[in-house]
Amino acid sequence: MSLFPFPPGSVALVGAGPGDPGLLTRCALQALQEADVVIHDQLISPEILALAAPGAVPVAVGKEGFGPSTPQAMTNALMVTHARAGARVVRLKGGDPAIFARLDEEIAALQAAGIAWQVVPGITAASAAAASLGQGLTLRGRTPGVRLITGHDMTGFAEQDWRALAAPGAVAAIYMGKRAARFLQGRLMMHGAAATTPVTLVENASRPSERILPATLATLPEAAAQLDGPAILLLGLAPRRAHTDAKEVTA
Amino acid sequence: MSLFPFPPGSVALVGAGPGDPGLLTRCALQALQEADVVIHDQLISPEILALAAPGAVPVAVGKEGFGPSTPQAMTNALMVTHARAGARVVRLKGGDPAIFARLDEEIAALQAAGIAWQVVPGITAASAAAASLGQGLTLRGRTPGVRLITGHDMTGFAEQDWRALAAPGAVAAIYMGKRAARFLQGRLMMHGAAATTPVTLVENASRPSERILPATLATLPEAAAQLDGPAILLLGLAPRRAHTDAKEVTA
Repeated sequence: MSLFPFPPGSVALVGAGPGDPGLLTRCALQALQEADVVIHDQLISPEILALAAPGAVPVAVGKEGFGPSTPQAMTNALMVTHARAGARVVRLKGGDPAIFARLDEEIAALQAAGIAWQVVPGITAASAAAASLGQGLTLRGRTPGVRLITGHDMTGFAEQDWRALAAPGAVAAIYMGKRAARFLQGRLMMHGAAATTPVTLVENASRPSERILPATLATLPEAAAQLDGPAILLLGLAPRRAHTDAKEVTA
Repeated sequence: MSLFPFPPGSVALVGAGPGDPGLLTRCALQALQEADVVIHDQLISPEILALAAPGAVPVAVGKEGFGPSTPQAMTNALMVTHARAGARVVRLKGGDPAIFARLDEEIAALQAAGIAWQVVPGITAASAAAASLGQGLTLRGRTPGVRLITGHDMTGFAEQDWRALAAPGAVAAIYMGKRAARFLQGRLMMHGAAATTPVTLVENASRPSERILPATLATLPEAAAQLDGPAILLLGLAPRRAHTDAKEVTA
């Protein structure tokens, strides 16, 4: 069953979701099964790569994980070269390609080379982390929205609209926030956030190794120091208490 | 193949994604195929409901679409009643359950009744709309984040941190923003946003009926008046030009 056309010589920029192979979309699965080449972020789990066509060539790129970092220009060149050779190229990215994933740089390179492309959206880590907490990222009547922000950018720790983030009830999902924990604590408290503001750290969201670390702004740096894997910080959210988990019922 | 345990007498709160049946996750598909009852938002497309088990009973709830609105208490009672009767209940929500979907109210009702629950995240409309535009919601070196906000809340048009939203380069995905178009225009321009700020309206994101209407703050109300279906407004983003679409190559 074909859910979308994926012609030879084109690139599908595909979101792999947060890590659980069950959170791949049906379109992402089709793209993997039809791929000749899968150019994937280092963090993509082996269980997901195992779903690709047996003959598909995996190519690891990116700066996360072990080993040296692949320059963006090299990733771009790999996509263009394989597509020009007539391959169906999947560029597999963790989470959603539109969120902190350099989508624009890669599409610009494909357009400059005259390569056809399409984007298959994926589930971003904030959605998976909220699902694990059993909390909405938005709360009717309380929060008029949620921010997805990054802990650091090209020049260092990322500056934000701290006054708004420090306001009572503000909710934000902070990507790549582990190393920025003390910086975030300082900036938010300087702008008036209470030390008791909940912050929940979700490591390896949706994977079997997922860990949920409830903290507050006061304890954020100590909690972040306990993290080993990639994590998302949920500012303004605490885990739901007295959770009757369907997974535990059957365990 | 079971991707997650879904015991009888429990409720899975499942994100159906933006509308394209190909953007269901594999877990969402499994939940539908194992469901005894599917309590779904009115806006869920027939193509997605058709993927449920043949014996599954569909129950439409919610306030969107045609027909009268179902009170939230009625939706909660339906979930509890069917789960207590031993059914596998899917509560199917458009997009992601954690984003503007009243997840907290429904989980609170399930917990009060002692019903086991789990959340299966879904792709939110902002991700699908950005994929269709071929634009990232975040741009390395330019935007330190993206806001997901609502055009109106329980009391009317939703107030936001307008000063930050009006700043050059700010990016926001505005849900339920159609009727609030003139309000949004007024608030943003009052806070200094340029009339030329791009706003792209994406109607029925990811569906065959998808329409992309490029506009600016100056033309936003006229563009919004052309919308028929549910739409998301992308503030600060314009469609990518000179798009070589893989779909068109094969069409």
